[in-house]
Amino acid sequence: MTQLRLNITTSLDGYVAGPRPTLEKPLGEGGEHLHQWLFALAAFRASHGMEGGEVNEDTPVYEESLGAGATIMGRRMFSGGAGAWEGDPNANGWWGDEPPFHTPVFVLTHHPRAPLVLGETTFTFVTDGIEPALDQARAAAGDRHVALGGGADVARQYLDAGLLDELTVHLVPVLLGGGTRLFEGATPAELELTKAIASPSVTHLTYRTGVAMLTLRKKS
Amino acid sequence: MTQLRLNITTSLDGYVAGPRPTLEKPLGEGGEHLHQWLFALAAFRASHGMEGGEVNEDTPVYEESLGAGATIMGRRMFSGGAGAWEGDPNANGWWGDEPPFHTPVFVLTHHPRAPLVLGETTFTFVTDGIEPALDQARAAAGDRHVALGGGADVARQYLDAGLLDELTVHLVPVLLGGGTRLFEGATPAELELTKAIASPSVTHLTYRTGVAMLTLRKKS
Repeated sequence: MTQLRLNITTSLDGYVAGPRPTLEKPLGEGGEHLHQWLFALAAFRASHGMEGGEVNEDTPVYEESLGAGATIMGRRMFSGGAGAWEGDPNANGWWGDEPPFHTPVFVLTHHPRAPLVLGETTFTFVTDGIEPALDQARAAAGDRHVALGGGADVARQYLDAGLLDELTVHLVPVLLGGGTRLFEGATPAELELTKAIASPSVTHLTYRTGVAMLTLRKKS
Repeated sequence: MTQLRLNITTSLDGYVAGPRPTLEKPLGEGGEHLHQWLFALAAFRASHGMEGGEVNEDTPVYEESLGAGATIMGRRMFSGGAGAWEGDPNANGWWGDEPPFHTPVFVLTHHPRAPLVLGETTFTFVTDGIEPALDQARAAAGDRHVALGGGADVARQYLDAGLLDELTVHLVPVLLGGGTRLFEGATPAELELTKAIASPSVTHLTYRTGVAMLTLRKKS
């Protein structure tokens, strides 16, 4: 079965974005520190139309995160907005005319919309929930994996539904002190660490999910 | 200068204890999963008066966390209580007649109290704040380090005050879904990873703190 994988960068205090995100600063205050490890990489820069960068211990980890046959993301991840598309000033997403995906992207939304083609990437808007989105993404991915692009709430939904196969947390040694948390309110569960790679700028921890649900005492 | 070091175990979702802690279950629901790696170790069991256990990849990490010359902890960590000592049903702490510290322990509290001697451990109650407690602990520790015993709020206070030198997070591959967070509301800061050791049951990440404070835009 086609695997669903999540690669997500968090601060040491567990935030995937800093406080007070805006359209101009979608990662919130301090959030730019989370992705410095990516912006430093020649491989990342090349895939996002930028020059320069370096090859370091994080390069193979980044390269391994590529290669998805399809991507799923939430509406907020796609545009930063919510509600009807008509009122969304970023309705074509963050990535300009040449988004870096080059494969089908399925955007979870409550608001129907015709597919959007930008460069080599087609965004399909899925309104009937996370499982149908996964079914469509799997069909589109062929023999490659499906990437779960985030954000945090969509990630938690797939995790809680037992639909996520593999999770890689890129843990950056900063404290943001506030913001959007990964896994806020997740269903208690046990995971299995399958790989750990530490570089000076980030620790990459890969887990197999769905190992076990923890049995917790219910609130009486 | 005598170093102040924090060893703390958290879940992958950043909790140092599960939800709804009680006197009977001070680590909250599911919190027992956090310390299974310790209870499995012969070295930990021996130092806590228990038999059995194993020697594994976590053993040297645990042994390195020992050797403090003094320990600082918060009142809630000590007894689970708050307020006047007279009303605290656990006023002599969690550890019975032979606490495992065998070195001076300084307990931060707002409520004065004479020192408490249990076995080879003397608990001194410090009412004038985190810096005086650290001064006393350093004086008592001699040429060994001072261990910051927790809990999470006391840890954050020392971290924010720039008084913590080294932090080791023992990251356990479970999701607790709620509870007490490490570093809730911490001042934004940059750390430096100095060591990473991954075992099947827990990933040990050691950071040097006080590398830099992040410059964040203030809420306007």
